Amino acid sequence: MKDPLKIGLAGLGTVGVGVVKILQHHSDLISKRAGRPIQIIAISARDQGKDRGVDLSGYEWVKNFSTMSNHSGLDLVVEMIGGAEGAVKDFVYSSIKNNKHVVTANKALLAHHGAELAQLASDNAVSVGYEAAIAGGIPIVKTLREGLAANNITGVFGILNGTCNYILTEMRETGRDFEDVLKEAQDKGYAEADPTFDVDGIDAAHKLTLLTALGFGVKPDFGALSITGIRDVSADDIKFAADMGYKIKLLGIAKRSGDKILQRMEPCLVKKTSAIGNVEGVFNAVCVKGDFVNEVLNVGPGAGEGPTASAIVADIIDIARGNVPPMFGVDAKTLQHASWADANDIQSACYLHLEVKDQSGVIADITSVLKNHNVSINKFIQPGFNDNGTESIVMITHKGQYKDILAGMIALEKLDSILTKPKHLRVEEI
Amino acid sequence: MKDPLKIGLAGLGTVGVGVVKILQHHSDLISKRAGRPIQIIAISARDQGKDRGVDLSGYEWVKNFSTMSNHSGLDLVVEMIGGAEGAVKDFVYSSIKNNKHVVTANKALLAHHGAELAQLASDNAVSVGYEAAIAGGIPIVKTLREGLAANNITGVFGILNGTCNYILTEMRETGRDFEDVLKEAQDKGYAEADPTFDVDGIDAAHKLTLLTALGFGVKPDFGALSITGIRDVSADDIKFAADMGYKIKLLGIAKRSGDKILQRMEPCLVKKTSAIGNVEGVFNAVCVKGDFVNEVLNVGPGAGEGPTASAIVADIIDIARGNVPPMFGVDAKTLQHASWADANDIQSACYLHLEVKDQSGVIADITSVLKNHNVSINKFIQPGFNDNGTESIVMITHKGQYKDILAGMIALEKLDSILTKPKHLRVEEI
Repeated sequence: MKDPLKIGLAGLGTVGVGVVKILQHHSDLISKRAGRPIQIIAISARDQGKDRGVDLSGYEWVKNFSTMSNHSGLDLVVEMIGGAEGAVKDFVYSSIKNNKHVVTANKALLAHHGAELAQLASDNAVSVGYEAAIAGGIPIVKTLREGLAANNITGVFGILNGTCNYILTEMRETGRDFEDVLKEAQDKGYAEADPTFDVDGIDAAHKLTLLTALGFGVKPDFGALSITGIRDVSADDIKFAADMGYKIKLLGIAKRSGDKILQRMEPCLVKKTSAIGNVEGVFNAVCVKGDFVNEVLNVGPGAGEGPTASAIVADIIDIARGNVPPMFGVDAKTLQHASWADANDIQSACYLHLEVKDQSGVIADITSVLKNHNVSINKFIQPGFNDNGTESIVMITHKGQYKDILAGMIALEKLDSILTKPKHLRVEEI
Repeated sequence: MKDPLKIGLAGLGTVGVGVVKILQHHSDLISKRAGRPIQIIAISARDQGKDRGVDLSGYEWVKNFSTMSNHSGLDLVVEMIGGAEGAVKDFVYSSIKNNKHVVTANKALLAHHGAELAQLASDNAVSVGYEAAIAGGIPIVKTLREGLAANNITGVFGILNGTCNYILTEMRETGRDFEDVLKEAQDKGYAEADPTFDVDGIDAAHKLTLLTALGFGVKPDFGALSITGIRDVSADDIKFAADMGYKIKLLGIAKRSGDKILQRMEPCLVKKTSAIGNVEGVFNAVCVKGDFVNEVLNVGPGAGEGPTASAIVADIIDIARGNVPPMFGVDAKTLQHASWADANDIQSACYLHLEVKDQSGVIADITSVLKNHNVSINKFIQPGFNDNGTESIVMITHKGQYKDILAGMIALEKLDSILTKPKHLRVEEI
């Protein structure tokens, strides 16, 4: 058997402890699979004294994780601290420069500095593993970069944030409001005390940025991504969508649009009966479309100690086996700056939700405005009076130019009979 | 860029032509991904003159595919002829012995000779890629062998034959009989003229044999597998199952049962609302359970030119990149002979379907027999008279010892009031 792969762990939170557990419990199995032992040599975390429920006594305690980057006894460091800048970024960069492989779940770091990291890794002939950064336990990096490498990828889309999917699922099943369900998710530990990263779509957008880079061979470009979270999705929206045969899901979508790439993170309506519509609760799902394979869907746990640690250790085993494919599927030098499609050019059906005064002629006014903006209505429901005496009007449009919808929304807002800013969500046909 | 990987194609049927198309259409993209060009050097098929719709003029035509095994210009041969024995087997063996990598979709060959091939590949330091042998376009070999390598796999199960799944889906949706739908599937090209391999579960069983080997690090052992196909599933069974909230699917199942492995291929009832229950038509699906990842489900096209060729070319790219993991996930020398669990020891609920005479006391007799065999009834329906004047009785039992069910069935068959051999199918809780 070959020499052991010697690793250092920076960060011993939930995921770090999961990695220790796997490497301890499955030490023999993993040696067999990797063809060599994988040995934890050094560990680092903020609090040395804390009881983490695992035996850490055999490992060298490193006070400052940064120093692991030039620890002569390590082949590989696992970065489980997080954050796109500062000491963590420096640690990853200098580890690579010191010819250490890096495995990380740090989607923010990669979404912001992925292209540079890919070049650095290539220059130093090391691997940067990030299976755990996207969709937790689902091996989607491997699926996209290796399993479907024969295809021209035409689209990647998915449910990339379990917290949001849990909230939307609960809202639909119980009819409760966003704030109420968020509070419960926080109590259950499914949502952070500061939920911004999750509910505003930022976490999912980091992941989508990486999926886009992988799928299309382009530089990760987080700044180019249009992001809408789920705060504005109301219990009513969910109910009205359901009445018309749809569910609302926070979807990350990247697809080819001519010679450009369209990339969006937003709550969308999907058919109730679609495969992605059936992915509920904290689960994640990623669907990849390729010109020869057609379509492959992967569903699994998007977060949590076990699944995330499973992905991290898979990367470590891969590196131990000597499998070091290029970080984003092609040589870093050939990564392109993507040309992004303009959302205005999207062809899409939309869900429209208007709050109106209960007065005669309202519908005639609304439909006339929409007609003037080339927006044609496919389904229309008027569910009756709301508790506050206003009335809701809900429509699904035919597929049309998205810019026409947006212009129509602005024109509607000016009508006297429209009480609140008209709301629209795209219907995604997937 | 590194030297090209030089390949030979043995067999130019649907899949072979798909491989040519991918390598021609995506030549630049694949070079970028693999870090080196992949060049078709030689091809071989039965009929040189046949128009296959692709330009083959640039390739060396090899009259007898067997001679490619010692063709000095080839690094890798793709075997797309099929068959577990004879010239094809010899070709694969001698190619490996001549230090050529092999990529194949030949599940029969691997299910019968996989352990020997793994050892031979290891001895000659070459790879035998077989992503295309299981579940077509779904990269399940990669998912199981690499993506989930950190886990002790506790179960693998799935829908592994698109023809059977298409037939069962059609039967349910249209209420038609097996023979009728099979005929249609043959006309549409979804089923072979001789459908035995598909409908009797043999094709799916070959795939399950390989999944079991991969998941549990054991030698493929096709002979150990209990196989039941879908010929005996009637339109009535499908309807009765639906009435009770279930669908009938041909499932391949391998799971740990104590220190043994339980492996079965049979039509089972699964909850209508389950993820696997929602996989319809020609699609395949594989679910993997691991102790850290929990559960990952992959759904995609299980056959066809594009998807199968996509899997073959993914293997070729992997080999071009230098990724050569052990064939069944662990060193061939460490592959164990599995210890197989006895079906009698399964704990399972069952669906029972009895045809009875319409006479008083029938139900009392039946339930008494079942009670004497420790079979306890959970759901019971008596749908009324059949066209032929007999009556159906349909039950779902509580979970119990499978051997008790089997003994109960034998005892029931002896009752005067039972007109035909009692039918049972397991209910799989997944």
